[in-house]
Amino acid sequence: MRQVAAIMAGGRGERFWPLSRQGRPKQFLPLISEKTMLQETVSRLAPLLGLEDIYVVTGQQYAQCVAEQLPDLPRENIILEPEGRDTAPCIALTVAYLSYRYPGEDITLAILPADHLITKPDHFSQTLSGAFALAAAEPVLVTIGMSPNRPETGYGYIKCGEKVPWSGRHFVYRVQRFTEKPDRTTAETFLQEGGFLWNSGMFVWRLSTITQAFQRYLPEIGNALSTLCAACGAPDTLPQVFSSLPRISIDYGVMEKADNVYVIPGDFGWDDVGTWSALARVLKADANENVTIMSTSGHAVHQEPILLGSKRCVISGNGRLVAALGVEDLIIVDTEDALLICRRGQEQELKSVLEQLRRQQLTAYL
Amino acid sequence: MRQVAAIMAGGRGERFWPLSRQGRPKQFLPLISEKTMLQETVSRLAPLLGLEDIYVVTGQQYAQCVAEQLPDLPRENIILEPEGRDTAPCIALTVAYLSYRYPGEDITLAILPADHLITKPDHFSQTLSGAFALAAAEPVLVTIGMSPNRPETGYGYIKCGEKVPWSGRHFVYRVQRFTEKPDRTTAETFLQEGGFLWNSGMFVWRLSTITQAFQRYLPEIGNALSTLCAACGAPDTLPQVFSSLPRISIDYGVMEKADNVYVIPGDFGWDDVGTWSALARVLKADANENVTIMSTSGHAVHQEPILLGSKRCVISGNGRLVAALGVEDLIIVDTEDALLICRRGQEQELKSVLEQLRRQQLTAYL
Repeated sequence: MRQVAAIMAGGRGERFWPLSRQGRPKQFLPLISEKTMLQETVSRLAPLLGLEDIYVVTGQQYAQCVAEQLPDLPRENIILEPEGRDTAPCIALTVAYLSYRYPGEDITLAILPADHLITKPDHFSQTLSGAFALAAAEPVLVTIGMSPNRPETGYGYIKCGEKVPWSGRHFVYRVQRFTEKPDRTTAETFLQEGGFLWNSGMFVWRLSTITQAFQRYLPEIGNALSTLCAACGAPDTLPQVFSSLPRISIDYGVMEKADNVYVIPGDFGWDDVGTWSALARVLKADANENVTIMSTSGHAVHQEPILLGSKRCVISGNGRLVAALGVEDLIIVDTEDALLICRRGQEQELKSVLEQLRRQQLTAYL
Repeated sequence: MRQVAAIMAGGRGERFWPLSRQGRPKQFLPLISEKTMLQETVSRLAPLLGLEDIYVVTGQQYAQCVAEQLPDLPRENIILEPEGRDTAPCIALTVAYLSYRYPGEDITLAILPADHLITKPDHFSQTLSGAFALAAAEPVLVTIGMSPNRPETGYGYIKCGEKVPWSGRHFVYRVQRFTEKPDRTTAETFLQEGGFLWNSGMFVWRLSTITQAFQRYLPEIGNALSTLCAACGAPDTLPQVFSSLPRISIDYGVMEKADNVYVIPGDFGWDDVGTWSALARVLKADANENVTIMSTSGHAVHQEPILLGSKRCVISGNGRLVAALGVEDLIIVDTEDALLICRRGQEQELKSVLEQLRRQQLTAYL
């Protein structure tokens, strides 16, 4: 059975403002290495899939950005959402597009976020390979869950149910329930109790299995799949069909309701790198726990920051000299036209900044 | 008797890095108003002196900057030090230059810093006028002392001695002693005890009086005055003569030793604005005690900063948008090529930054 991966790359990435902007959200930035998050995500799939079986699902406004960052990806493997309507319609479009392209064929499809960090790509390959095999063999919805190592309140959790031996050497679990991002106390309880995994947002299933799940749990989407499939061959009609789909996440609309969900535990140095502070967790720090992110605007000379008596700062430079004296726990982001100084842990305030910019119609900074 | 003022404008102003640079130190920056500190200093003298009696003493490298900022100042009123050798040689050069220009004439000379803030220019005029009159009438060294309103550790103090009635309505004091910058406890004692004034660095004396003082207390300078005067007419010889003078301040070399020093108390909203934090004291603050300094690089649009949950910050912008979230007591200085984030009270670390830049030969940032 054909195996394909669809990389969800439509996110706006506002939490990395001002480095991320409307025109260049997080997945298109080289936050961790010299490659962008999207390029890293595609590279990781190389041991399992050829480029002809890798799809990128994104917004119309990012089509060119994807094409530039992935010049070898076939253009027909870029699936363009007419608008952002959360993950269930996005996945439905992917399913419809594959059905349109490979009519009458069942396919095993992996859904992968474009902007997460994975430090052990070999382990990732092995786990994803197992998930492909399980989803191909059984009519189940497979998720990949991460073994938690701290009471993280920024992730959703999966409670493991019955342990099922599978394929000789592997175990998988039936999913007992999904839980949303917990508070600190709840997260600590989860860790003590055991049997919880982080929800990585990676799913694997057959087209036939997810189609049945849509029909059962999200009939508005399930019943629209044929029309959506036809619209893929008549792109002018796609926006109207797509805009009729409910705005809902796949977790809330399908995964939390379905009874055939399995989770494969994975341990491959995963992090969703959801905030500036998260970078401090995953990047190499100096002796005072400061981390510096390389220049991303192509300056020939990247001036190392001068840090005196400063601790636990996250600094994203733009070629300019940054001097930080006697400051602690700050996020310092320098860009061509905007500068952010934010206390770590106050990153939720970024939303307020963006709201204020919209209110004042300072769209150049968005 | 002719009255002139000489404005000391040779300082390097490193404490305002990165806004102040070698080529553009503090006195040439518009820190407080749209005028530069030097322009403000000259403007304040208008009620008392015409431009022909105002001199600016500065380094060769700032000659053009002074001429640009003071286009109406006669070029021959710019006195150029061949090198920086502290205040006693600087004042000696001024005395020599005036003697060269007005041979055989005694003159009352006010020495004024170029980069201090005075919020009550009328009071300043009255006080300086009184100081001119006292210095013209008596062979004494007159200083202007500021009534202290807080236990400031950043200023030198003057202990007042005998109170002397003078000119009907005024009092002056004999100076009992000068004290260097005190520690906090000493400064508090000074304030409780009373009879202390801040040393403003403003002096008034006749050429004849300061010449005698040089001869008595700094004979190396006193004996060189004739040669220095001659060198003013033969500028090629000036560097060699000037470089033979001892590096010493007028306070240490003359004022602390002389027995004919008087102090006139002044109260004209004076501040030496010696650090970024001092700006927070003297500029209009928002409800959260944040102060913002206008753009100085001629950007057409100066974007107001977005400050959310931030308190007691000093922000010097450069046209770029600055967003500060949940931060307190920071100095944020944005310039074209360098960015400073400094905890207030840690400004002494700026010296270390400049040292490091020199060591690394990053002269562009100096």
